[in-house]
Amino acid sequence: MVVGCLIEHDNKVLLCKRKIEPSYGLWTLPAGYLEIGESAMEGAIRETREEANADVEVISPFVQLDIPLIGQTYIIFLAKLKKPHFSPGPESSECKLFSLDEIPFSSLSFSSMVVTLNLYVEDMKAGRKPKFHYGTINKRPGTSPSDIDAFTLEDHMQS
Amino acid sequence: MVVGCLIEHDNKVLLCKRKIEPSYGLWTLPAGYLEIGESAMEGAIRETREEANADVEVISPFVQLDIPLIGQTYIIFLAKLKKPHFSPGPESSECKLFSLDEIPFSSLSFSSMVVTLNLYVEDMKAGRKPKFHYGTINKRPGTSPSDIDAFTLEDHMQS
Repeated sequence: MVVGCLIEHDNKVLLCKRKIEPSYGLWTLPAGYLEIGESAMEGAIRETREEANADVEVISPFVQLDIPLIGQTYIIFLAKLKKPHFSPGPESSECKLFSLDEIPFSSLSFSSMVVTLNLYVEDMKAGRKPKFHYGTINKRPGTSPSDIDAFTLEDHMQS
Repeated sequence: MVVGCLIEHDNKVLLCKRKIEPSYGLWTLPAGYLEIGESAMEGAIRETREEANADVEVISPFVQLDIPLIGQTYIIFLAKLKKPHFSPGPESSECKLFSLDEIPFSSLSFSSMVVTLNLYVEDMKAGRKPKFHYGTINKRPGTSPSDIDAFTLEDHMQS
């Protein structure tokens, strides 16, 4: 299970540029593998602290994306900064706030991030409070994690 | 990850009486362990077919409950019967529809089922369309899975 945060701040979202493989140099939400003994929410807060040196308060669950082909599930929470401070952690070369129109969709690290940010932008542009989304990402077999266009989103539902 | 369905039918919900340990003889939503290569939704549909011989259509994600102490996450979907047919599968001795006031809260199999059904009853009695809930179940160390009162629900959020 991969857990992370979509941090809202001044109508912008926080992204980190990866300083590690895979997807070196591409942008991601702060996220990483859940560790033993922590809840998804605790893991998402920890990953955000590690990757962006940011202390966040989780607002609500935002999306669950299953990727059955590789046995991964992404759980992303909406969150806000407790203080307006962030800086790149050891696995990031840069952390930056992006307005919705500035999100670098062609330089995102994983298909899960493309889907998550697309759903968020759709909710926000429709003037809705973001809902909870569930979906399955079916990646085309043999494609690399950083081939962010080689997928379809299926079984999309929202609550 | 444990996946399952909360099936709504004629203002009732479908429960199964367990014919296996743990929690033999107690009531549960149809649910079980996610298998390799399937999405949470696919697993929930499969478990419902196996435990209640019921074909369901998933409506929306309803709850994620993390139990960090035992490394489990429950993902439960709202669903409806495609046909009004169900019967006990090999792991169930009985399958039955319960109205909200008839749910056997003192004879449920797991704390996750107590929490899920409580949240559902609260949503329904408040006249709301059920929302998506996230929470952490903190079990008191050393208690058995069937000690359904030995827990607290924390970090409860809804979308």
